[in-house]
Amino acid sequence: MRRIEALAAISEDAQGVTRTFGTPAFLQGSALVKSWMDAAGLSTRLDSIGNVRGRLVSRAAGAKTFVIASHIDTVVNAGKYDGPLGVLMGLDLLEQLVQSPVELPFHVELIAFSDEEGVRYHTTYLGSKVVAGSFDFNLLTKPDAQGISLTQAIDTMGGNAQLLPADALAADQWLGYFETHIEQGPVLWERNIPVALVTAIAGQQRVELTWQGMAGHAGTVPMHMRQDALAGAAEFVLAAEQFGVANTQELVATVGKLDVRHAASNVIPGEVVCSLDLRSADAARLATAYDELHHHAQGIADRRNLKLHWNLIQYTAPVSCAPEMNTLLAQAITESGYAVVPLVSGAGHDAVPISAVSPATMLFIRCFKGISHNPLENVELADVAAAVQVAERFLQLLFSHYSSSSH
Amino acid sequence: MRRIEALAAISEDAQGVTRTFGTPAFLQGSALVKSWMDAAGLSTRLDSIGNVRGRLVSRAAGAKTFVIASHIDTVVNAGKYDGPLGVLMGLDLLEQLVQSPVELPFHVELIAFSDEEGVRYHTTYLGSKVVAGSFDFNLLTKPDAQGISLTQAIDTMGGNAQLLPADALAADQWLGYFETHIEQGPVLWERNIPVALVTAIAGQQRVELTWQGMAGHAGTVPMHMRQDALAGAAEFVLAAEQFGVANTQELVATVGKLDVRHAASNVIPGEVVCSLDLRSADAARLATAYDELHHHAQGIADRRNLKLHWNLIQYTAPVSCAPEMNTLLAQAITESGYAVVPLVSGAGHDAVPISAVSPATMLFIRCFKGISHNPLENVELADVAAAVQVAERFLQLLFSHYSSSSH
Repeated sequence: MRRIEALAAISEDAQGVTRTFGTPAFLQGSALVKSWMDAAGLSTRLDSIGNVRGRLVSRAAGAKTFVIASHIDTVVNAGKYDGPLGVLMGLDLLEQLVQSPVELPFHVELIAFSDEEGVRYHTTYLGSKVVAGSFDFNLLTKPDAQGISLTQAIDTMGGNAQLLPADALAADQWLGYFETHIEQGPVLWERNIPVALVTAIAGQQRVELTWQGMAGHAGTVPMHMRQDALAGAAEFVLAAEQFGVANTQELVATVGKLDVRHAASNVIPGEVVCSLDLRSADAARLATAYDELHHHAQGIADRRNLKLHWNLIQYTAPVSCAPEMNTLLAQAITESGYAVVPLVSGAGHDAVPISAVSPATMLFIRCFKGISHNPLENVELADVAAAVQVAERFLQLLFSHYSSSSH
Repeated sequence: MRRIEALAAISEDAQGVTRTFGTPAFLQGSALVKSWMDAAGLSTRLDSIGNVRGRLVSRAAGAKTFVIASHIDTVVNAGKYDGPLGVLMGLDLLEQLVQSPVELPFHVELIAFSDEEGVRYHTTYLGSKVVAGSFDFNLLTKPDAQGISLTQAIDTMGGNAQLLPADALAADQWLGYFETHIEQGPVLWERNIPVALVTAIAGQQRVELTWQGMAGHAGTVPMHMRQDALAGAAEFVLAAEQFGVANTQELVATVGKLDVRHAASNVIPGEVVCSLDLRSADAARLATAYDELHHHAQGIADRRNLKLHWNLIQYTAPVSCAPEMNTLLAQAITESGYAVVPLVSGAGHDAVPISAVSPATMLFIRCFKGISHNPLENVELADVAAAVQVAERFLQLLFSHYSSSSH
């Protein structure tokens, strides 16, 4: 917790915490994390995308690598815990390992990913995609808001874009991946439980809907002659909400943006653009829900004599956590004296790109009222202690599982 | 119609028609209108607020004044007919009177009001309020967007703010007021009728509603834990629409503005501000409708655990057209061979301030699809001819009514 405070004190500005990829504050923060990894006795290095990596090497023949990781970049005006908590809990675990007499059946690597939030280049998971070997090299020429390309940013950080492929762990080297993270939602807070087992990370469909009716004078057009684009969009907002409530075990549906074009209080809205954010852990259900809501929206438009443009903006497939990892993590939670609460992560995490090449799982920690991406983000010391206890037990179970299975 | 085209050719910019109060284009337009009134043989003058006034004087003892008027200022990017049609139809009527042998039983004054739209000083009816004697002298220090006060604008136009009170017609001088105007709504267009009798001008309540819930992550907050401000506002949008439909003979209700604060597609809306525009010709019904919708909105907020701030922004009382004038106008419509279609004006007009000091009535002319405040605004020549016929008959009926009643 002292390290969390020390890292949070390094920020691009005074309010909240802001350390976006590649900034001087970011580099100062990653140097501090590297110094802690050095002091813990790990083999450390900064890789070409700016990930801080610290390794404990196994002497077992053909040993694979188990990665414990999270990220140390932040959103603008962030809290202290989103990302750093997982990295610094991992550091605690590796410090315990260094001082224990255990013979490692696999390599253990702690990684502080350099870009998960995607603030600077509007693309998430730069750090973990390099390690997963799925980095998109077309991004290298992409400029940030100041016109600095990703290649230039990597140069400034002391990296070399040419060497990025060498920083990947090949698929056959991965034993597994474990990430601890604050929940960033209110479920554990409401249920008064310190930790949760993440079973999946929801997939996401993001849609932009444009409703076109006929603008008109609010005083002179009788109600039955109107083609009110806002009334159509409002009906959809409620339909999406009701759909989410009716399918609450399977998905969430949100209209977060709604913009009335040329809005004035005395003008009947002629055009409205709104968003739909639809998330589910079940790819098939996500697809059918998308179709159902599209059909519902078209029905609203037809009935109201509006034109509807429905545009898919983004699709991210759901990711399931690895069952064999989750079995051991659930056992660790139970043996630590806590109820196993299975949760779907509605937010994305570095575990998403990693899961393409490795069995991956996550442990969630309760955070204050579910608040995140906000200076009010907070966790209780007791909950962190519970998570440490669970994670230590999880590592022990992994050791015995892979020691015995390798015999 | 040629005069309409000539006046519409004078504009602050090339697209549409823009002649806002006191601009060079406005002054050029009012000089043209004054030259036409001069040529028609009227006693003309520009008054201190920039109204163009042309008078035919009666020789009857104790003669009062009958005013025919509309406005010649426009909104930005306006059409050609909103305002000028009423002024130039009035000019036609007075040209007929000048050439006829009729002995006027009252003075007839044609007025081209200088500011009805209120674009420059965000306050409507500057011209007609001066004539009605209800001008608010506190407005004189009000600046426009360039910091030019109304007093300075009046100076630039050659007026003198000190002399404004002298330009009012005292209440005992008014015989009546008649304004012809395009409907600015679709009722006549849909019913295929050229003119309508205006029975009242709707009163208006304008409300700003602020809905406060709790912002949250669109992926991590389960549906049942949300306090979605947009869902509450959407429910109100539909409630206002349904209320308008259910009371369609009495009122119209419109939500024209809706703004999601700090909107993002992946954030559950925490605060939404929307408008309500409520109009009715019946003051008592307007008041009860206002209370009913307020009560309904509060019910939505309570049920959804949202905070609602309900702020009345503007109240304008309804105005009834004078029954004795309307009886004659209805007779003129019937005698001209048209059905009498009684309409409530949902838009405000100069007749509103005038009706405080004079019996007033209005004749509406069908416009293309009800479109107004738009370069697409259009009227048919045949409809204008119908309106001229009705207005001439109306004046004849007035003459015989007031000639006989003065005996």
